[in-house]
Amino acid sequence: MAAEAVKTLDGWYCLHDMRTMDWTSWKKVSNEERLEAIEEFKELLTKWEAVEEAEKGSHALYKIVGQKADLMFMFLRPTMDELSDIETAFNKTKFAEFLIPAHSYVSVVELSQYSGNSSAEDPKTRERLYPILPKWDYVSFYPMDKRREGEENWYSLSFKERAKLLYEHSKTGRKYAGEVKQIITGSFGFDDWEWGVTLFAHDVLQLKKIVYEMRFDEVSALYGEFGAFFVGNHLPKANIDTYLHV
Amino acid sequence: MAAEAVKTLDGWYCLHDMRTMDWTSWKKVSNEERLEAIEEFKELLTKWEAVEEAEKGSHALYKIVGQKADLMFMFLRPTMDELSDIETAFNKTKFAEFLIPAHSYVSVVELSQYSGNSSAEDPKTRERLYPILPKWDYVSFYPMDKRREGEENWYSLSFKERAKLLYEHSKTGRKYAGEVKQIITGSFGFDDWEWGVTLFAHDVLQLKKIVYEMRFDEVSALYGEFGAFFVGNHLPKANIDTYLHV
Amino acid sequence: MAAEAVKTLDGWYCLHDMRTMDWTSWKKVSNEERLEAIEEFKELLTKWEAVEEAEKGSHALYKIVGQKADLMFMFLRPTMDELSDIETAFNKTKFAEFLIPAHSYVSVVELSQYSGNSSAEDPKTRERLYPILPKWDYVSFYPMDKRREGEENWYSLSFKERAKLLYEHSKTGRKYAGEVKQIITGSFGFDDWEWGVTLFAHDVLQLKKIVYEMRFDEVSALYGEFGAFFVGNHLPKANIDTYLHV
Amino acid sequence: MAAEAVKTLDGWYCLHDMRTMDWTSWKKVSNEERLEAIEEFKELLTKWEAVEEAEKGSHALYKIVGQKADLMFMFLRPTMDELSDIETAFNKTKFAEFLIPAHSYVSVVELSQYSGNSSAEDPKTRERLYPILPKWDYVSFYPMDKRREGEENWYSLSFKERAKLLYEHSKTGRKYAGEVKQIITGSFGFDDWEWGVTLFAHDVLQLKKIVYEMRFDEVSALYGEFGAFFVGNHLPKANIDTYLHV
Amino acid sequence: MAAEAVKTLDGWYCLHDMRTMDWTSWKKVSNEERLEAIEEFKELLTKWEAVEEAEKGSHALYKIVGQKADLMFMFLRPTMDELSDIETAFNKTKFAEFLIPAHSYVSVVELSQYSGNSSAEDPKTRERLYPILPKWDYVSFYPMDKRREGEENWYSLSFKERAKLLYEHSKTGRKYAGEVKQIITGSFGFDDWEWGVTLFAHDVLQLKKIVYEMRFDEVSALYGEFGAFFVGNHLPKANIDTYLHV
Repeated sequence: MAAEAVKTLDGWYCLHDMRTMDWTSWKKVSNEERLEAIEEFKELLTKWEAVEEAEKGSHALYKIVGQKADLMFMFLRPTMDELSDIETAFNKTKFAEFLIPAHSYVSVVELSQYSGNSSAEDPKTRERLYPILPKWDYVSFYPMDKRREGEENWYSLSFKERAKLLYEHSKTGRKYAGEVKQIITGSFGFDDWEWGVTLFAHDVLQLKKIVYEMRFDEVSALYGEFGAFFVGNHLPKANIDTYLHV
Repeated sequence: MAAEAVKTLDGWYCLHDMRTMDWTSWKKVSNEERLEAIEEFKELLTKWEAVEEAEKGSHALYKIVGQKADLMFMFLRPTMDELSDIETAFNKTKFAEFLIPAHSYVSVVELSQYSGNSSAEDPKTRERLYPILPKWDYVSFYPMDKRREGEENWYSLSFKERAKLLYEHSKTGRKYAGEVKQIITGSFGFDDWEWGVTLFAHDVLQLKKIVYEMRFDEVSALYGEFGAFFVGNHLPKANIDTYLHV
Repeated sequence: MAAEAVKTLDGWYCLHDMRTMDWTSWKKVSNEERLEAIEEFKELLTKWEAVEEAEKGSHALYKIVGQKADLMFMFLRPTMDELSDIETAFNKTKFAEFLIPAHSYVSVVELSQYSGNSSAEDPKTRERLYPILPKWDYVSFYPMDKRREGEENWYSLSFKERAKLLYEHSKTGRKYAGEVKQIITGSFGFDDWEWGVTLFAHDVLQLKKIVYEMRFDEVSALYGEFGAFFVGNHLPKANIDTYLHV
Repeated sequence: MAAEAVKTLDGWYCLHDMRTMDWTSWKKVSNEERLEAIEEFKELLTKWEAVEEAEKGSHALYKIVGQKADLMFMFLRPTMDELSDIETAFNKTKFAEFLIPAHSYVSVVELSQYSGNSSAEDPKTRERLYPILPKWDYVSFYPMDKRREGEENWYSLSFKERAKLLYEHSKTGRKYAGEVKQIITGSFGFDDWEWGVTLFAHDVLQLKKIVYEMRFDEVSALYGEFGAFFVGNHLPKANIDTYLHV
Repeated sequence: MAAEAVKTLDGWYCLHDMRTMDWTSWKKVSNEERLEAIEEFKELLTKWEAVEEAEKGSHALYKIVGQKADLMFMFLRPTMDELSDIETAFNKTKFAEFLIPAHSYVSVVELSQYSGNSSAEDPKTRERLYPILPKWDYVSFYPMDKRREGEENWYSLSFKERAKLLYEHSKTGRKYAGEVKQIITGSFGFDDWEWGVTLFAHDVLQLKKIVYEMRFDEVSALYGEFGAFFVGNHLPKANIDTYLHV
């Protein structure tokens, strides 16, 4: 008999968009062109800030460490169409001419209802479905699947077994309350993995510690499959000039 | 003893063709060249519309979200030769100079005959074999295989076992009637996976919900292997000017 | 105890060479340069035709559908050196400047001797070892391995078990006699998979049907591992001008 | 029941940064430009040396053998922010215009506490957490995971079992004392594998011998999964002029 | 209990370096530039010949068939430093501007001591550790691992079991004495696979036959994992002008 799917609540749509700076081209254009590109980019940021101010979405910008990418944009919006529009608008900017696409991920903020049903009207639930991204100093993003292999098939476990494993898992998460903020986004039908995990921290070491400790939770040890990891430092708008100065 | 293959009915040939806009080059050419490229592209669209009008094929155009591609063309035609011709003709256009090939998939609309034989003459069957693509707001495309690993070997199951699993699976599908339209295309001998799945929806969240819920169906939990997922917003001809305006 | 290898007869060496047209560059050069490139390419084709006429080899040219490649050349020659020479000569042509390498496969026509030993002198055997490629309308090419995993290890089966599985398999093949022509080439030590399979058909749907039906044969269900599939339409010399016209 | 995570001590953050020389471009610019690029690069090296002198970090530069990369920089710093800053500063240099990113790895020096707790204040422990990289003649770098597959699931073993396996493993390591210096860095949440291993040797053959011998240790034989290996020769600052001379 | 590693004797360090000709660029430069590039390349070859003459190393040059590469250089040298120097020197040549890196492999000639200890002073052993590469007409190169999966874990077998399996394997190899010359190189800690295998033959079909026949040996059937295969024709210095003539 087939296992029973859990009900989910779904909130804002989510786009992670990683890009690599083409520093050589950036240096080759005139100072004027660079200033123009930065100005236009900041205007976009200002628009996005207004959206966030109005609680119609949220965004954050991080510098990725290592060569996988230089910048990671994370966008939350009420519709998939707005994500598409943001992407198109950004791709048409001058600044985008110097940013080589490196990776992206499409998903939607998701709360699974294993431990009783939340009301989508409950303010605490709403805060989790429509979160204003914390601009904490560090981020870690990675996609994941639940395993379906022989004896270890998440999708063949009963609702009760899954709920129990996730409950144990949540206890590990709770140890990091205040240290690590976690946003789970679902991507079935949207992207190559089943979920995206975005972790924010004030102390980057907490990102390593929580991922490490969780790997011993039975649900991860037996059923977790993980994709590429991206770690980054927050890039506030105020630091963009310095970052892009050449 | 070998398991018995199911009979299939096969309809129109199908090409999914994903491309990435080279916005930098697009912006660099003259306004005149851009207009010329758009004009020629629209003429192609008009030709394709005439084919669809005459029920000699169908097509749809979606904007893919994320960096996997910017545009996805989906073409249905009575012969493989026409797909090849469309591809060649499109590649020769001015607009194609600004579109970097990102991904493609070759298949044929397929109805498997697990639950009794349909007649290829039956109008309802014909509609499924030669579908006019719904221009619904959202699309999700992904390829899939049936697993052949140890105990989980689809191709070693009896016809009856397979039919039963697919019957259960179809019940999940039916819950989404009116919400999600699904086109299954077979690609044995044509492309790297065994089937392509194209889902259309008015509400993009239904695409996530159906894929998620189906994963718990025994046939997916035990036998489904999934490739890359592409999600997109419909791009009607009327919006092309705006989309391409720089 | 180790299983016993089967004796094989080996015929002509085989190169599949897939290329992608750089239409943008092709359009940018002068009409004169294009004509020169086409002329030189046709001279090569004429040389290859003379080789085929003399039964010193064979070749065929197909347009691949989808973005994996635009053209697939298939060459058969008595020596590996001739394959290398063809490749080098072709790479030096003007036309090759507009063809981006997309994929290739190196192998040798092979007849395995599971059902008794053929004589390499037998005219029917010679025809199979040194085949003149049928210029049928459609082609499907894919590489494959026999599985070596746990219980499913082809190379641990006895000769008798393997012969029986392949005998059953051949019955499926025989159903397609006249519809599908199959050339098996071995590539141990030559390329990344163990065999290449090239199928020719008058009706492209037969390519899908045979690959699908064979997957249920025990030998494929349990032991077959398949690589990328390329499907194409025949491109006769007479159509090259039209194909390359821009 | 879930297994228990081990406590770790974490030291300096670590970036491995591999680049490939674009020799063609390097040769094409003027001698003056090359000298300028080298001068600026050496100034960076001098800065980094001052950091090392002050025991605020460490670095090393190796020439990678084979085509995976030409140069590997290894950086250790007290904060992730400094790694990000080094990367950005280096990417803005003239020299970086001739270096194509080839690979990178982000991690943190880690001591796992399987055999009793070290004190982070203990000078010997501090030396291991904040190591000055030995500029030995050869380096080997590779990432690794602990397996989670069926019976072989590291994260389901008890603390005691893991401690025992690692204790046995450490004995193999100790045989190479003085011959091979090993730095283990953890990358949970930071990069695609769980750990990075950097080995230094005076005799490059010792790098092969230790990796080979360790593969027979039960912990590696059953639980080790290894990524790409990079082997290199030390490139001291004094040899940079010669190396870059064209 | 852990299995016991076998002792190995290690000889010359080995670099396989595959490159793809950029024929388009090669044709575009002046005849003079091409002659200069060829001249300089031949001078390098002459230097390498002198090293071989002095028995201080060896090298060979093959034309790879198919698109994986056009040329494969194989170098043997007493130190890893010399391999690095050869690579750097070659990369600085004019000819290298027309050769796109395609693949490489770093290893060291290895004799495992399963059947009693050879003396490194024994002339026959020395010949195997420091081989002058035969310039036979054909080459096949591929990397390989020994499997570590569930029941099939080479590194958990006893020395005796491994010795027995390899002894059986060696009998297959001996059937090809005089037909196929095999050089085994170890790459633990140096490159992504555990070993490289380079086979030389006068008749290219023997390369296929030995690889095929060996796959049935229990050691390969159960424990062999194979990477990409490269097959090539010898390119003697005398044929370089012809090969590069455009």
